Amino acid sequence: MHALDKYSALIEQEIGSIDFPVSPANLYDPLRYFMTLGGKRMRPILTLMGTELFGSDRAEAVHAAVAVEVFHNFTLIHDDIMDEAPLRRNKETVHTKWNQNIAILSGDVLFVKAYQLLAMQRGEHLPALLDIFNRTAIEVCEGQQMDMDFESRNDVSIPEYVEMIRLKTSVLLGCALEMGAIIANASKEDRHLLYEFGQHIGIAFQIQDDILDLYADPDKFGKQVGGDVISNKKTLLNLKAMELANGEQKSQLERLSTERDAVMKVAHTKKIYSEIGAKESCEAEMQEHYNFAMQALTQIPLPEENKKPLIALADYLMVRNS
Amino acid sequence: MHALDKYSALIEQEIGSIDFPVSPANLYDPLRYFMTLGGKRMRPILTLMGTELFGSDRAEAVHAAVAVEVFHNFTLIHDDIMDEAPLRRNKETVHTKWNQNIAILSGDVLFVKAYQLLAMQRGEHLPALLDIFNRTAIEVCEGQQMDMDFESRNDVSIPEYVEMIRLKTSVLLGCALEMGAIIANASKEDRHLLYEFGQHIGIAFQIQDDILDLYADPDKFGKQVGGDVISNKKTLLNLKAMELANGEQKSQLERLSTERDAVMKVAHTKKIYSEIGAKESCEAEMQEHYNFAMQALTQIPLPEENKKPLIALADYLMVRNS
Repeated sequence: MHALDKYSALIEQEIGSIDFPVSPANLYDPLRYFMTLGGKRMRPILTLMGTELFGSDRAEAVHAAVAVEVFHNFTLIHDDIMDEAPLRRNKETVHTKWNQNIAILSGDVLFVKAYQLLAMQRGEHLPALLDIFNRTAIEVCEGQQMDMDFESRNDVSIPEYVEMIRLKTSVLLGCALEMGAIIANASKEDRHLLYEFGQHIGIAFQIQDDILDLYADPDKFGKQVGGDVISNKKTLLNLKAMELANGEQKSQLERLSTERDAVMKVAHTKKIYSEIGAKESCEAEMQEHYNFAMQALTQIPLPEENKKPLIALADYLMVRNS
Repeated sequence: MHALDKYSALIEQEIGSIDFPVSPANLYDPLRYFMTLGGKRMRPILTLMGTELFGSDRAEAVHAAVAVEVFHNFTLIHDDIMDEAPLRRNKETVHTKWNQNIAILSGDVLFVKAYQLLAMQRGEHLPALLDIFNRTAIEVCEGQQMDMDFESRNDVSIPEYVEMIRLKTSVLLGCALEMGAIIANASKEDRHLLYEFGQHIGIAFQIQDDILDLYADPDKFGKQVGGDVISNKKTLLNLKAMELANGEQKSQLERLSTERDAVMKVAHTKKIYSEIGAKESCEAEMQEHYNFAMQALTQIPLPEENKKPLIALADYLMVRNS
């Protein structure tokens, strides 16, 4: 999506200008490494778009934008420890490449860096920026804790699951946008609407992620198709299927959860999901959140022209196939 | 030290008013537990004293004071993971009582809480408070990384060691005081002098800690006397001894590092340290930092009367025997 290049360039420049000291090397080498692993930089792009939406120059929001991206990377470093993930973006995670203690501590330092970037924004906006940033940071941790708690539970409801992805993923998209709006001096009401837009796009995006696990184009998907099915991970696809399944289908799915042949497990699960209409049910829920997002955006009293980049980004995130 | 009660009461009240949500219980129960384990609350007391020194009401600084204490507790939760410490203040550490992932994540949340408390201070002071708080938080992490790096090094110099304790422990005392001074609208020069006072008292305090490991009154000491000697931990006592030892003493100390009989190891080490004068050498260095601290305090152009509580606290910290 070439329209994003102008945002990305600004963001990469700001990320590149973060001056990590040479020493202690075990603290800062991991951060130099991790911050250049790339990624879509979706969150800081949203902050810049949030500022532009209200007619301000995107450059005004660049510190806050990168603060959000740096915070996101901090959560990834710590989440990777907790999830025992060996790889991130096809590269070794920090705790794998160095060790766990270094991953804890360099993550902590990165978190402070996010606050240092935030503090570079103009003083008048600082209390409002800190307010939403702090609240969101806590919610993201709550979402991660819920996700970990779910691993050992068999009674997770769909509303609980959606609440978990809202906290773990979506509030940060809302926060990224609202921070942009704060910097552009938007009204509280408009800020809130933009936050709602981001939050619902975030939920829709995460549901899309759950669907793609099983239905992505294998040639374009960065990881194994059906990975969540193989590991019996709770996803919306899985929860919807279990909710909609009849007795026989439920039994089949339960039997499949212990199937050791991964190829057969994925193929059979997919077949039963298809009978149940699990994918369609997820897509309906995804569409609902997309609609909520668009309704919120519509209510912001600004020319349609201003909203085009945000709508284009949302559509881009929805139609991706990997 | 009864003179501290009026400060402690205010701090405990503010800590008690931190409203940790009920759910997710695995995220917040550890924080309710850890924040009530107690401790000297030395850092927040310093912030309140820093504000009073310049004639302002201590109550004005209470949010910032508790922000420092909350930050300190966050570092303890994460440090305990890294150090694999089973106990803290004779109670189970968070990663022992719950698990490591919970300790990482609840520590992260506690860190955000520190920023939330800081953001409750009046807006005009916020940029300056954030500036020193962020810088100090990063330095504390650097100190912890240096401490971990030292474990696998045999060539740690005394200046490197002092730099490590400065970062890991002392800068936070300077920060606590300076934040109090900022809130009382002290001049930059006076803020800096108060920071220097805190930093040097912190170094002296930490050296005292190193000395007490071997020379504390066993009846009053909360942990095993000689613990650092038994575990071959690098401390100033140990580094000074190795620096001042003659060839024969050095060989004896090296042999003792592999001695398995803990009682004999501690007794013999103590005997050799005594021949070398290691304790006296540490005490001289401690006194030097105490003097630096007092020189900085003297330069602040305020009545001696204002400085009395700080001097009393510093003396209290220096003459403790446990």
